Amino acid sequence: MCSRIAVDLFFDVFSPYSWIGFEGLMRYQKVWPISVRLRPFYFAGIIKATKNNGAPLMLAEKESYMDLDLKRNSTYWGVPVSLPMNFKNLVFTKSSANAQRLLIALQKEQPSLLEEAARLMWIRTFTHHIGVFHKEDLMEIMSDLEIENPTALLELASSHDVKDALKINTSEALDMGCFGAPWIHVHTPSGKIEPFFGSDRLPLIGHLIGEPYEGPLNHLAEHHSSLTELK
Amino acid sequence: MCSRIAVDLFFDVFSPYSWIGFEGLMRYQKVWPISVRLRPFYFAGIIKATKNNGAPLMLAEKESYMDLDLKRNSTYWGVPVSLPMNFKNLVFTKSSANAQRLLIALQKEQPSLLEEAARLMWIRTFTHHIGVFHKEDLMEIMSDLEIENPTALLELASSHDVKDALKINTSEALDMGCFGAPWIHVHTPSGKIEPFFGSDRLPLIGHLIGEPYEGPLNHLAEHHSSLTELK
Repeated sequence: MCSRIAVDLFFDVFSPYSWIGFEGLMRYQKVWPISVRLRPFYFAGIIKATKNNGAPLMLAEKESYMDLDLKRNSTYWGVPVSLPMNFKNLVFTKSSANAQRLLIALQKEQPSLLEEAARLMWIRTFTHHIGVFHKEDLMEIMSDLEIENPTALLELASSHDVKDALKINTSEALDMGCFGAPWIHVHTPSGKIEPFFGSDRLPLIGHLIGEPYEGPLNHLAEHHSSLTELK
Repeated sequence: MCSRIAVDLFFDVFSPYSWIGFEGLMRYQKVWPISVRLRPFYFAGIIKATKNNGAPLMLAEKESYMDLDLKRNSTYWGVPVSLPMNFKNLVFTKSSANAQRLLIALQKEQPSLLEEAARLMWIRTFTHHIGVFHKEDLMEIMSDLEIENPTALLELASSHDVKDALKINTSEALDMGCFGAPWIHVHTPSGKIEPFFGSDRLPLIGHLIGEPYEGPLNHLAEHHSSLTELK
């Protein structure tokens, strides 16, 4: 029962590479002896705390390359990720905090819906370019998830407990040296925590735990029901 | 004869990730239909031109992570790379220009020695932590390579032609959006140039050319004769 290796995925729905990392780990959880724990954190808090001026959007050349690199990752992983036209503006004017808090509230109340909720937020932001920043966005997401009492869940999402939980996840990543997203902690059988940055470290994670990297495993992709439901 | 896909590897012996990318491509050249063209360029020129303040050494968290990430890559690829104690100081006080120019001179005069010369420079810098910055370092390298007339080669290395060739390689990468090293251009059969950044893009390059990524291929590693010869 407890022989699976715990892997924490720290992610933010504002980060397209978090989506790639998330889908990768969800697939590898089916073939590797790992148990992925989803840890919503606050990406803007990471960038601020580390003064990471080297994040892709801060450098024109990296921004152009990021667009190209995401297209390639999209084809490779079969994940319909693309940058909204105004992504840079979005990042500097909107906050993912409410969306991240809703995920944490959901994790407390209906944990079985967390995976699909996160996926739905990425699909809204990076496939349909609608976003997840306003109350109406979050209400629509909860409607898609058939949440019975969305108002109560939104209230929980703005509670001190949930706000603290988001801060705690963010701090835990920062304490291990985090400077970007996705950020991954592999809890090795010897009791160590091995931190990894990025969506492209699955070959190295596999090497660490003695399992082979076998590519994008597209046949193990979750069915994106939300893709057909959303217009 | 010409059916192999040309792949340009822009690299600097001052960049440890360039070494990983180099060994990866050298091995995949044996199993994929690619022909790797080695293109020494000037990493410091790239960082300066793009004002890339996000390079790993500019951010404390990235610097720590880079050390950990390189150790993992070293084990995974079987490449004996480790950072010299004073690497950051080295990067800001020394220049790789003379070493890079010597590689270009060698490429003109004795191209069959280029691969081993580059490897030898990385081994000096990132295995034995000796360096390749002074004339004596370069003389030792030429001695290891059994170059017959090292003085003439050093003269060629400081000629206008060679200096220009280094600038041209650097500009060519910059023109395609380069902001770091290693930088790779895949010349697709349809006549396009696809740029890739980093030592970790072999899965995506494979996907682009329709070939599978099969891990580090350690059984295809070149014998590092220089490792045993150097003390």
